[in-house]
Amino acid sequence: MSQLKLISRVSRVLSGAVKRSELFEINKVNTNNARTMASKGLTVENMNPNIVKLEYAVRGPLVIRAGEIEKELEKGAQKPFKRVIKANIGDAHAMGQKPITFIRQVMACLALPDLIEKGIFPEDVKQRAREILDACGGGSVGSYTASHGIELVRRRVADYIQRRDGHPAHWEDIFLSSGASTAIKNCLQLFCNDLGGKTSGVMIPIPQYPLYSASLAEYGLAQVGYYLDEEHHWGLDLRELERSLAEASATCNVRALVVINPGNPTGQVLTRDNIESIIKFAKKHGLFLFADEVYQDNVYAAGSKFHSFKKVLVELGDDYKDVELASFMSVSKGYMGECGARGGWAELRGVNAAVRAQLYKCISAMLCPNVLGQAAIDCVARPPQPGEPSYELYIKEKTDVLDSLKKRAEMIVDAFNQMQGFKCNVVQGAMYAFPRFELPPRAVAAAAAAGIPPDTFYAFRLLEETGICIVPGSGFGQRPGTYHFRTTILPQPELLREMLDIFKKFHQKFTAEYSG
Amino acid sequence: MSQLKLISRVSRVLSGAVKRSELFEINKVNTNNARTMASKGLTVENMNPNIVKLEYAVRGPLVIRAGEIEKELEKGAQKPFKRVIKANIGDAHAMGQKPITFIRQVMACLALPDLIEKGIFPEDVKQRAREILDACGGGSVGSYTASHGIELVRRRVADYIQRRDGHPAHWEDIFLSSGASTAIKNCLQLFCNDLGGKTSGVMIPIPQYPLYSASLAEYGLAQVGYYLDEEHHWGLDLRELERSLAEASATCNVRALVVINPGNPTGQVLTRDNIESIIKFAKKHGLFLFADEVYQDNVYAAGSKFHSFKKVLVELGDDYKDVELASFMSVSKGYMGECGARGGWAELRGVNAAVRAQLYKCISAMLCPNVLGQAAIDCVARPPQPGEPSYELYIKEKTDVLDSLKKRAEMIVDAFNQMQGFKCNVVQGAMYAFPRFELPPRAVAAAAAAGIPPDTFYAFRLLEETGICIVPGSGFGQRPGTYHFRTTILPQPELLREMLDIFKKFHQKFTAEYSG
Repeated sequence: MSQLKLISRVSRVLSGAVKRSELFEINKVNTNNARTMASKGLTVENMNPNIVKLEYAVRGPLVIRAGEIEKELEKGAQKPFKRVIKANIGDAHAMGQKPITFIRQVMACLALPDLIEKGIFPEDVKQRAREILDACGGGSVGSYTASHGIELVRRRVADYIQRRDGHPAHWEDIFLSSGASTAIKNCLQLFCNDLGGKTSGVMIPIPQYPLYSASLAEYGLAQVGYYLDEEHHWGLDLRELERSLAEASATCNVRALVVINPGNPTGQVLTRDNIESIIKFAKKHGLFLFADEVYQDNVYAAGSKFHSFKKVLVELGDDYKDVELASFMSVSKGYMGECGARGGWAELRGVNAAVRAQLYKCISAMLCPNVLGQAAIDCVARPPQPGEPSYELYIKEKTDVLDSLKKRAEMIVDAFNQMQGFKCNVVQGAMYAFPRFELPPRAVAAAAAAGIPPDTFYAFRLLEETGICIVPGSGFGQRPGTYHFRTTILPQPELLREMLDIFKKFHQKFTAEYSG
Repeated sequence: MSQLKLISRVSRVLSGAVKRSELFEINKVNTNNARTMASKGLTVENMNPNIVKLEYAVRGPLVIRAGEIEKELEKGAQKPFKRVIKANIGDAHAMGQKPITFIRQVMACLALPDLIEKGIFPEDVKQRAREILDACGGGSVGSYTASHGIELVRRRVADYIQRRDGHPAHWEDIFLSSGASTAIKNCLQLFCNDLGGKTSGVMIPIPQYPLYSASLAEYGLAQVGYYLDEEHHWGLDLRELERSLAEASATCNVRALVVINPGNPTGQVLTRDNIESIIKFAKKHGLFLFADEVYQDNVYAAGSKFHSFKKVLVELGDDYKDVELASFMSVSKGYMGECGARGGWAELRGVNAAVRAQLYKCISAMLCPNVLGQAAIDCVARPPQPGEPSYELYIKEKTDVLDSLKKRAEMIVDAFNQMQGFKCNVVQGAMYAFPRFELPPRAVAAAAAAGIPPDTFYAFRLLEETGICIVPGSGFGQRPGTYHFRTTILPQPELLREMLDIFKKFHQKFTAEYSG
């Protein structure tokens, strides 16, 4: 089935005319295709079954439908709204956030080194561009770099981590990647080994960022979910970790534990105590820790502070020096929001040197991360310092973005908590709210009749009637019988206010419709 | 073993003090590490065995050693040479090729849109930048794009293919990627399915570009090698294809056939007749065709012409419309050489629509290819046209690069063919020569004593004594008992002349040493 046909079915889902199996399991729809059955050709039935299983809700059918609606609006279709508000993805610039000038000036100079001598850029921009060009083969960002990234940039990242944590970081332990996602996938892939006939398993939070569930499916690794504690700011409860591990150990070989801090989609910022407990748990059970820390700059709530797993681990002392940790960072989030640059990094700690060599060998076949993305990493790892010409503008731009995000985080939580049947934890950090909401039994029944999860049913109705695109909680995972959705906090304040007003009206109308 | 320790061993290989098993199978070196044996930690023994198997010679131990030598030279080490010549990788800018101005001006404007109104760029550059920004969320290249790339750029790629082939191309069949390598891997991965208990197999040329062998190892797919016919310009011999397929069919389920045209590392440009035969072979056996056509602009030899598989397939008529084809292109090669931009694309033809939907779903979890790389694709797919302000400079730059590459291709072949014991096919296209050379029996014995392949032994000696870094034929595959290496044709003419002189002297010395 083509994507277009799929989408036409998506809109028909609401009427119950199309079954969930056809919408969500797009593998099923081709069984009547005579050609593919008759030939040796590649079909959904004979292709990689892991890819068929894989789901990535952040860009799933709802988002495809949102794109379609945008095209319909462009063509003049009459709708009860004038534009689609894409609150489904943490895409700051798309929602009107302005780039950090320093980063973009450096990138422009690297793309076109003639600009360096044009007298239009501050001295520190020119200096930075010259340094990076010196580190590129032939002085061009068109050259390949080392597969794990330019040494200069890796050293700057090590300095950044050292400044952040107050503990040494070694540049050889850092590798750059085409976005944090690539680095995370590279590390997850290391665990594919059915030791003693048992699949390797990886613990991930529920709710989780679906890169994890998608990658585990792709690699045939077992997904071992542990529930975050919604009643306690989505923190990690040690008893729940132990329960999850004990249950999963019967069927798979649990080898790694993923923690997302600040949390996506849940917005919590873990306390230092909680992190210590998690590290102790990892040590006790010999688990490799994945610390997804891409939102480390996005901390808003009073009393919340970002503690890196690396820092806490080091400070736990020598007894913990053999705990294996990979921590991940990105230029896509924070105050920079350079999603399109695809720049990320990972720091390895306590990882066997031979394993590291294997990892670096594996990524070498992909040649290198894009070089301007590496340049963006360089600017983030070593931003302008006090006294340098770009410092004032840089710090103003950064502060403005983070202050505004903080206000929007508060605004969105307040608005949801004023809506009947909603309960939304404080967005301590990251870029999302993940409110819990109630659905009238008749709405749940209508969703069941349509063959889709109730929160997805709600989200489709919201999209079709208001143009607001969110991601239903079922795309991230949630405790059975509860309903959530993820919305970003990224619409600019005026649009966010408008969105929340529309949302409230929709919810009232929806609830009334199904409660009558 | 750390990479540094590995490298110190590499240099000791020449003396025979270190065995091949320690150098090339870095998995073996850690078995005495008590900590990793005692704990549940990740080790080479319990990690993903496919990654352990994977090898990528273009960035293997020789290249790591070349990097070390560069550092030693920087620190003032006395060597018989002043610089390392990296002829191991098709990295044009690193070897002094200049970027195409139009591409870089557009990229600079996209990075810093303020530049558009500065009055320093031609009108078509500004226009292009505006068009691309209009297609980006929030008018910023810092936004995510669709996972398969910006629709505008996909449409431009379709137009490019249509102009090239004279046949329709559909933008929905094209997806953009972070370099052609990523697209190739995405498509290979589709075949992971042990149907009827038999591993899926993929036919690849021998010699091949090691991305293929590395990816097949990574995905656990069976590598089914077919030998290229060195005596006939490295063409594909149908009898050899049939032999290879028949032999492999006993042990695996052969499902796809990879062809690299123009050839890497072998430099052939396939005739139209040869391509027709290959397509007929694919149809007869129901094989999915991978056409790696990243060197489509790099055709030098008189009488040679690039024919795309897509064009030939279409012209074979309706009987062939169900042949499945994925063809790949990149901004890293050709006249542009923008390796660092990581821009590539694939066109799918005859591929089941549901499979395509699965592929697009799978790549969606990786968010999107970097946006400035997509912009480079846009410039390549729709370069300045006659009458536009940037046209003259563009066509001059492009022609200069391709003319010079053509001269260098001839120069290198002539030089090798004048060396005793060498036989080098004409470099009809691509960026490499792959000469065959003879080794004295005593050199072969010395290599055996050192535990490394004879051509690798030769390449290490060449590197240590001259600073020239090539890739031994064993990294690409070759008929048993023959020795080759791959060198790029990319050093600028003066350096290339120098390199070839040094090479000749080394070879004479080496041959004399082992023939006495």
